[in-house]
Amino acid sequence: MGWAIALHGGAGDIPFSLSSERKAPREEALRQCLNLGVEALKANGPALDVVELVGWLLELGVVAVGVVMSSAREGGGGNVTGQLRKVGTQVCDGAAVWLISSIQVRELENNRYFNAGTGSVLTSNGTVEMEACIMDGKTKKCGAVSGLSTVVNAISLARLVMDKTPHIYLAFDGAEVFAREQGVETVNAGHFITQENIERLKQAKEANRVQIDYTQPFPKESTTPNVDSQLGTVGCVAVDTQGNLATATSTGGLVNKMLGRIGDTPIIGAGTYANRLCAVSATGKGEAIMRATVARDVAALMEYKGLSLKDAAKYVIEECTPRGTAGLVAVSGSGEITMPFNTTGMFRACATEDGHSEIAIWTSD
Amino acid sequence: MGWAIALHGGAGDIPFSLSSERKAPREEALRQCLNLGVEALKANGPALDVVELVGWLLELGVVAVGVVMSSAREGGGGNVTGQLRKVGTQVCDGAAVWLISSIQVRELENNRYFNAGTGSVLTSNGTVEMEACIMDGKTKKCGAVSGLSTVVNAISLARLVMDKTPHIYLAFDGAEVFAREQGVETVNAGHFITQENIERLKQAKEANRVQIDYTQPFPKESTTPNVDSQLGTVGCVAVDTQGNLATATSTGGLVNKMLGRIGDTPIIGAGTYANRLCAVSATGKGEAIMRATVARDVAALMEYKGLSLKDAAKYVIEECTPRGTAGLVAVSGSGEITMPFNTTGMFRACATEDGHSEIAIWTSD
Repeated sequence: MGWAIALHGGAGDIPFSLSSERKAPREEALRQCLNLGVEALKANGPALDVVELVGWLLELGVVAVGVVMSSAREGGGGNVTGQLRKVGTQVCDGAAVWLISSIQVRELENNRYFNAGTGSVLTSNGTVEMEACIMDGKTKKCGAVSGLSTVVNAISLARLVMDKTPHIYLAFDGAEVFAREQGVETVNAGHFITQENIERLKQAKEANRVQIDYTQPFPKESTTPNVDSQLGTVGCVAVDTQGNLATATSTGGLVNKMLGRIGDTPIIGAGTYANRLCAVSATGKGEAIMRATVARDVAALMEYKGLSLKDAAKYVIEECTPRGTAGLVAVSGSGEITMPFNTTGMFRACATEDGHSEIAIWTSD
Repeated sequence: MGWAIALHGGAGDIPFSLSSERKAPREEALRQCLNLGVEALKANGPALDVVELVGWLLELGVVAVGVVMSSAREGGGGNVTGQLRKVGTQVCDGAAVWLISSIQVRELENNRYFNAGTGSVLTSNGTVEMEACIMDGKTKKCGAVSGLSTVVNAISLARLVMDKTPHIYLAFDGAEVFAREQGVETVNAGHFITQENIERLKQAKEANRVQIDYTQPFPKESTTPNVDSQLGTVGCVAVDTQGNLATATSTGGLVNKMLGRIGDTPIIGAGTYANRLCAVSATGKGEAIMRATVARDVAALMEYKGLSLKDAAKYVIEECTPRGTAGLVAVSGSGEITMPFNTTGMFRACATEDGHSEIAIWTSD
């Protein structure tokens, strides 16, 4: 038994022809987020805090543009570094020191790509509705949020729902009211809306289709917007040195989705689930994932059929969800990791205490 | 193999001392709803339409005050009878004729107790937020809605989400917009707010607690509002003569719940789930039911562990949810029925093709 961590930045029809200018920063971002998570786990950070931290970093848009954190510059970066310190401190003092001292947050405040949720895609009304979920495997405590339009860190708000309310799941206006009561960072809703996403919505409407956020290329290849502005769904699962499991998932949903549409991400048992056996974070076409209760079924196959994590996840991805609709990352209590998907690719990364580490997009990586 | 149907009107701390004036109309309502469902099934109505119909009747408040349908009066009752005819027609012609001809809808339009959702309890803001879910076992198609404040029939709107959109789940403003696009019956939000529920909310706030809708008595026995105004969660599961399964659940949630709180009812796999093996509708404390993915776990225990419906449901209610938090009704593809709960009582009723029929509140009934 040892620590293990896996994370994803969305599964979908990622073209094999993805240019290296698009591929490299994403791989680098996965690497950096993975490293942060690994350091936090090595410093005995609890799994729940680690998945919140890594999920938070992924939400910040690091998958989209790559995190630049090469040299130490404690105290730089304004509010974002302040928040990073806060979250890092939650993880554990040792990891926090490491995090803060090793990260150079470059122009975070002025770079829209680095603002959380900027990659969130637009509903048919041109608005942003973000959702997220976090779950602790040991206690099965969990928190979820939907319909956020101004909250910078959806996963951290889900954690607050878990920690500070008698409920599990708050949505839309109620979630926004709660965010303000808790004093979390919010911005004007227009902040999350980028020109690229307006263009994507226009294209999706012209094609009359609802599109998974990261799906590409668009029908008109020439007008395909920059993939780097598409965050898609992000997620992280971890088992810590104590053997505790946790999972977190966050998303902006689908391009051209109907107003008020809720996907799999915030649904306990669909996009996100953890218990004493495993932690799972799924990504893909939300409706297919909800219908197949993907995350819970991985755990249920272990619990009720005695399958290994790998076999359970393989069964769910191969037998329970249609081709091209789903991927997941999962860890077991004993530190096993699996990252299957039935889409063209899935941005993913993982590491275990025994030294295994992997960063990949397609199967042949 | 034959048809079977089971329905519930909420599980909770129903006092054994419940007066017969309160008990009798509820039992009669369960009986009438059951009879309607049975007739629809006998007329070869599809399970999906039957659970929508019975769920719709339960939403109308029949559990709260009892349905009066003793003599035939086709065409009476204004809009409500019109709607009943519409829904009945969906079920099947034979059942529709039976339904319309056998129901006397007495003063429905002028009796607030008979208006759907009137039993819905209030959020801490004094507003109503209703939610519902429907699922077809054969296709696993499903629809869900949350945060409704003006829609008369939440289950029917969930059915429309399932049938008319590429999504499964619409919530709050988006669900209300969709309701208007579909032209379903809506009323002013204030319509659902009764004096009794305002009083219940006041008491819950004084006691500083979030309360399951049907929970009673209140701390101050003398001010306990009329239980008849409390609809609680309602649900229906059925297997039809073709062996197809379906489930539907609808709720007004918790008294004094936070604005925007989503419970188990609309969550596929928590409060509501159906596949080719069984159909399940759960009721109780939403957070406990979500955490235990109650409805999916009943099916998963059958699918992955080979348990019978009865054993699977018993395990989930006894081993996976804390005492006093959950109940469910479930049917299997072979017409088996089970209705376990770990609360004091659960308003429930069931019938099977081979002649078994039951209406009960507590275990000793």
